[in-house]
Parts: sequence; structure tokens; C-alpha cells
Amino acid sequence: MASTDKAARRAKFEGAWNGIRDELLDHFKSCGMPQEAQDWYAKNLDYNVPGGKLNRGMSVVDSSEILLGRKLTDEEYLQAAVLGWGVELLQAFFLVSDDLMDSSITRRGQPCWYRVPKIGFIAMNDSFMLEAAIYRLLKVHFKKESYYVDLLELFHEVTYQTEMGQLIDLITAPENDVDLNRFSLKKHSLIVIYKTAFYSFYLPVALAMLFCRIPTSYTLPSSPEPIAPYEVAKNILIPLGEYFQVQDDFLDFSGVPAQIGKVGTDIVDNKCSWCINTALAYATSEQRKILDENYGVKPTEAEKELAKKMAAGKNGEEQGYLGEAENRVKKVFEEIGLREKYAVYEEGVFKSLNEMINNIDEGAPGQQGVLKRQIFTSFLGKIYRRQK
Amino acid sequence: MASTDKAARRAKFEGAWNGIRDELLDHFKSCGMPQEAQDWYAKNLDYNVPGGKLNRGMSVVDSSEILLGRKLTDEEYLQAAVLGWGVELLQAFFLVSDDLMDSSITRRGQPCWYRVPKIGFIAMNDSFMLEAAIYRLLKVHFKKESYYVDLLELFHEVTYQTEMGQLIDLITAPENDVDLNRFSLKKHSLIVIYKTAFYSFYLPVALAMLFCRIPTSYTLPSSPEPIAPYEVAKNILIPLGEYFQVQDDFLDFSGVPAQIGKVGTDIVDNKCSWCINTALAYATSEQRKILDENYGVKPTEAEKELAKKMAAGKNGEEQGYLGEAENRVKKVFEEIGLREKYAVYEEGVFKSLNEMINNIDEGAPGQQGVLKRQIFTSFLGKIYRRQK
Repeated sequence: MASTDKAARRAKFEGAWNGIRDELLDHFKSCGMPQEAQDWYAKNLDYNVPGGKLNRGMSVVDSSEILLGRKLTDEEYLQAAVLGWGVELLQAFFLVSDDLMDSSITRRGQPCWYRVPKIGFIAMNDSFMLEAAIYRLLKVHFKKESYYVDLLELFHEVTYQTEMGQLIDLITAPENDVDLNRFSLKKHSLIVIYKTAFYSFYLPVALAMLFCRIPTSYTLPSSPEPIAPYEVAKNILIPLGEYFQVQDDFLDFSGVPAQIGKVGTDIVDNKCSWCINTALAYATSEQRKILDENYGVKPTEAEKELAKKMAAGKNGEEQGYLGEAENRVKKVFEEIGLREKYAVYEEGVFKSLNEMINNIDEGAPGQQGVLKRQIFTSFLGKIYRRQK
Repeated sequence: MASTDKAARRAKFEGAWNGIRDELLDHFKSCGMPQEAQDWYAKNLDYNVPGGKLNRGMSVVDSSEILLGRKLTDEEYLQAAVLGWGVELLQAFFLVSDDLMDSSITRRGQPCWYRVPKIGFIAMNDSFMLEAAIYRLLKVHFKKESYYVDLLELFHEVTYQTEMGQLIDLITAPENDVDLNRFSLKKHSLIVIYKTAFYSFYLPVALAMLFCRIPTSYTLPSSPEPIAPYEVAKNILIPLGEYFQVQDDFLDFSGVPAQIGKVGTDIVDNKCSWCINTALAYATSEQRKILDENYGVKPTEAEKELAKKMAAGKNGEEQGYLGEAENRVKKVFEEIGLREKYAVYEEGVFKSLNEMINNIDEGAPGQQGVLKRQIFTSFLGKIYRRQK
């Protein structure tokens, strides 16, 4: 897809946000909320909801157009955009609260919301209001639709799943209590599926499917067996989401700052990443000892100074140096051959996803109300062998 | 109602919790969650959901029995108890998160959840899971009911309203930034209605009304005008909830620790209470100056020492001494005649609520599907002139 087309699609999606935002604020005002609360809520919405990559939200609109096989009408676009911004509101709810839980510093190139002057712990209630806004919008725009209750249940279920994933992650990899015995590739998979894949991959597509009135079950001439399209979609999108996160984990280790746009900190932050879990699965007892002693260990003050000097010498560009403990872990990763293992993983999952996608029966040409392969190939095309 | 009867009703309601809790944990386990996450979630549910007064939850069951004019069957009881525990889960979500936002120390006689060893900020995600559990329970127990979507919308709306109220409260009365210009009786009323009255008073009754299939509108022989029973209930329960909170605020000032079971801290905590707002409405400029200079001012270290000595002299019983700044505020409250103003308020609101309640047309004797006065009189009876 040409980048100007992508920019135009993004601009249109962002345009819909202005109306949605005003609608939320008008309702808030109509409840008799004082001016200072209206200003606060407006700032909460403006600061935390737009400004991300918007991939999740826009994929509701894109998937809907693929399923219908045509552009959306203006009226349809607004409805689909409400669902898309619903996903972005859910994401904002998670990010604002995660940043507070993790004591993060920046998000999307600006200070985390709770670190903005006067916000502090009020960020917690602000995150709740982002979640509540989803259901307010669904009520206004979808109450009359036959699939309204399905939308509500989908958001509920995915929210719960994401919170379950967050819980396992938080208790498996607390930043200041390193214990690699808690880690495993199985635990990693569970965390990734629950914490990321359901809301980032399954949710947008399932919303588009409901919006396009894809039924829970249908049969096609090719086979007497009924097809359960939401299960088919889930069976593809969950491993796809897992692949995306594994890639993210791998890029955190292998990518250079100039390429991925950030300094990878998973090792020093004791993250339950695909890299450490794969390394643990193959490490000799000597390598395991190095990992135990160095994973999640913060750089010393002297190392932080050195990192600053290195950046100064390269015109301020981050060199990604985070200390010797991190370097020792990275050396074990290289010894174990993580790059090759990743390449093997990537080719394997790519092949298996393509097989599942090719198995989808699209019915007759132009047939509506059935799954379309392009929904999944468009995701896979954007992810496969990405470098940032 | 005899206290043994009350104890038996409470025991029955608590008994229902055990099944509901196990159901949530069984589902969580069936998602493949690891043992340590199952243990964590169980502890979250056990520590935070039961253990309160359970008035809100039990009033769903009680109101349902009043509306039906008979005891609930075992099957009905379980369903009504799910709604009641839904209210308690919502309350637990608010309390766990509020305590973290307010850096509170104890709740229900035990350390706040976030202060339990190893919990910390994970309490935030734990509070989300308490909220998510509501919708999981509603789906299991009410999906087949015609009013399922009404239950979902009611919980959504009331949750949003409570969060709005919390926002106004947080920005009007931040603990460490005293500015009485932000206060007013109107603001107090708005905070109390949104933050407390909707979820504590309207929600349980509206849930019982939905459960008993009270329609949105009906007519009775006495008048051709259609009755909107949910509006009638709201118009009574919101001022009733406001009255309850005003009473709470007044008892925080006037009650002695031995009577109300705690030391009132609203004055030193800069709370936007009915007392300060009423005082501000009547204060002379000299009194206003005293309030500005002393409201929200913490006791000095010397005063804290003195409070300890006073308690020691009275066999450890709290004397409620919180320093001279608080005493100066209390003196202004007395000068303004807050006790008398409260008595006038209480009689006025009691009269007006009784009038509204008496205006309810209950239809023919034993008629079902219509509002019953007893729902409201039973609330009012428990609240009127309460001393603790």
C-alpha cells in the first residue's frame, strides 16, 4: 500500500476521533460536570488516546472493507471508526495504567500521563474513564444493532483476558526480583497470548466481523461441515499475535537504536522475553549461571556515565550501551545462536500461518458474510521479516 | 428486623459468595492460568470482596423479595446474589484502587491490599480483575434473560458515573493542596451523588427491579399518566444517598471514636465534606480566614505525641485529638451552629423523602411488577437519625 494512501487513511481515521471525542465531552458536560473536570477529561482523552500508531483501531475499518468487498459508506465508516477507537481507548486504558504500575518514564515520545504535572495517581481514575468511554460509545452507536450484546461481551472478554495476561506477567517478571526459574517458553507464550494477542489481533478483526454481520456458524458448498468463522479467525490471529510479540522481543535484543527507534531494555528490565526463555531452554549450566547472575541487573552509575560519553561522541545518538551485565547476557544469547533460532522460528510460523490462511474457504467470488483470506494476509504481510 | 435474622441473612448471602468465587476461579483455571496466578487471584477475591458491611449487595436480595412479595426460591436467590455480589465486586474495584490513589493505610480493619507484602502496584491490575469478574458472572448467569443487556448497561453507566464523581472529588480536594475557593455545597452535592449515591443506592435497587422484571413504564388505574418506575426510584434514591453521605460527613465531625468506630479525619485530610461547605456558606470573613488557615492542616509531630499520651491515659482508647488546627476549625463549625443546621437538614430531607415515598402508587394489593414503598422505607428507616 502506497505511503500517501496510508497517510490519507490515517488522517480520515483521526478525523473521526474529533467527533467521537466531542461526543464524549458533550455527554460529560450534560451530566453537569464542572468546567475544570471537563477540561481535565478533555486533556486525558487528547493526551492518551490518539498519538499511537493506530494499527489496532484502523484494522477494524480495513478488515470491514475487506469483508464487505467495498469501501464503507460515510455512515458505516463512522460506526466502524467507533469500534476502532474503542480498541484504541482500551489500549489507552492499559497503557496509562501499565505505565503507572511499571513506573515508566515516557510513552509515545512524551512523559507518561501520571508524570504530567498535577496528574499523579489521578491517572488511575483517568484510565478507568477511558475504559468506561468505550461502553458509552457502544451504547450510543450500536444499541439498535442485533449484535450489540456481542460487541459488549467481546470487549468484556478481551479486557479480562488482557488483565489475566498482565497478572501472569507481573508476578512472573517483577522488575526488582529476578528469578529465572519462574520463566519458560510455555509461560512466555501464555503471557503473550493473553496480554497482547487477544486485544491487539483478535479483537479488531472480531469487531469487524460482527460489524459485517458474519454469523457464528455457516456452511459452504465445498463441505458439509459447518464453519465457525470466529474460531477460525482466533486460531490464526492468536499465533499471529504471538509471532508479532516474539518479533518485538527479538528486535529488542537484535535491533540497533537507529533502526528500531528505541534502546532495547528487556534484559536490564528482567522482562519475560522470548529471547531469555529460548536461551534458558538451550543454556549449558555455565551459561545458565551467567544468565542467573546478570539478567535483570541494572547498569552501575559508572556505566551510565560511560553510555552518556559514548552518545556524546556519536553526536548524541544512542548507542544502546546498558552496562556489562547486559553485555554478558547478550554474549550468551549469541553463543546459543539466538539469531538463527529466531530465523527458524519465523520461517516455521510464517509457513504454518500461510497454510491456515490458505485453508480458508471464501465461498463464491464476491460472496458476503464469510471470512476472507486478505484480512490475515494483510496482517502477515506487514509483520513478516519486519526490521522495526 | 431482629439482629439474629440479620445475621442469618448475612450468613446466607456470604454462603452464596463461596460458590460465586469458586466459579470465577474454576474459569480462570480453565483458561490455563498457572498455579501461582490462581493462588494470587483467589487471594485478591478473598481479601477484597467479602468482609465489608455488605449492605449494598444484600439490598439487591432484600429489594427483590419486597418487589416479589415473597421469599426467593433457591434458584432465584443465587441469581439475585450474583447481582448483589456484582455490586460488592464493583465496590471492591473502587476501594482497592481508591486506597492506592489516596495512599490509605487500612481498610475494613486490615492493611489496604496494595500494602500487603508483594502486592504493591499489582493492586491496580487486581482491581481491574474485580471489575471484569462482574461481567463474567453476568454472562454466565443472565445471558439467557431478556434484561441481560439492561444489566450490562446499568453496571456500565453507574461505573462511569462513579468515576466521574471520583474525578471531581480528586481535583476539588487534593489532600496536599488546600484551596477552599474550589468548594461549594453545589460541588459537594455533585461529588456525593456521582461518587456514592448512584452505585450505593440506585444500583442495588435498579438491579432488583430488573431482576423482578419491573418494566420501564406502566400505567395504573389511579391515573392515565404513565409511570417511569426507574426514574421514580432514582428520584428518591439519589437524595437518599446524598442524605446518607451528608450524615457520614456530619458524624465524622460530631461523632466520638467510641461511637462511630473511627477517628474522624475529614478536616485534616482536606475533604470536601458537607460540614466545611456548610460552614463556608455561613462564615463571617474572620471565620473564613480561620478556615482558610487551618483546614487540611496536618498535626505537628508534637501534637501527634500528645495524642498518643492522651490515648495512653485513657487505656489506649483513641481520643480523636488531631491537633490545634483541627480544633480551630471545629470551633468555627460550632460557632456557626453546624449541629443545628444538620438537624434542620435531616428533618427536611426526611420529610421530603417520605412525601416522595408516600406518593408511590403500589397498584392493587399484592400486585406484582410495580414499585413498592417498603424498598425505600426500609433504607430510610436504617439511616434516619443514625448515630454510627
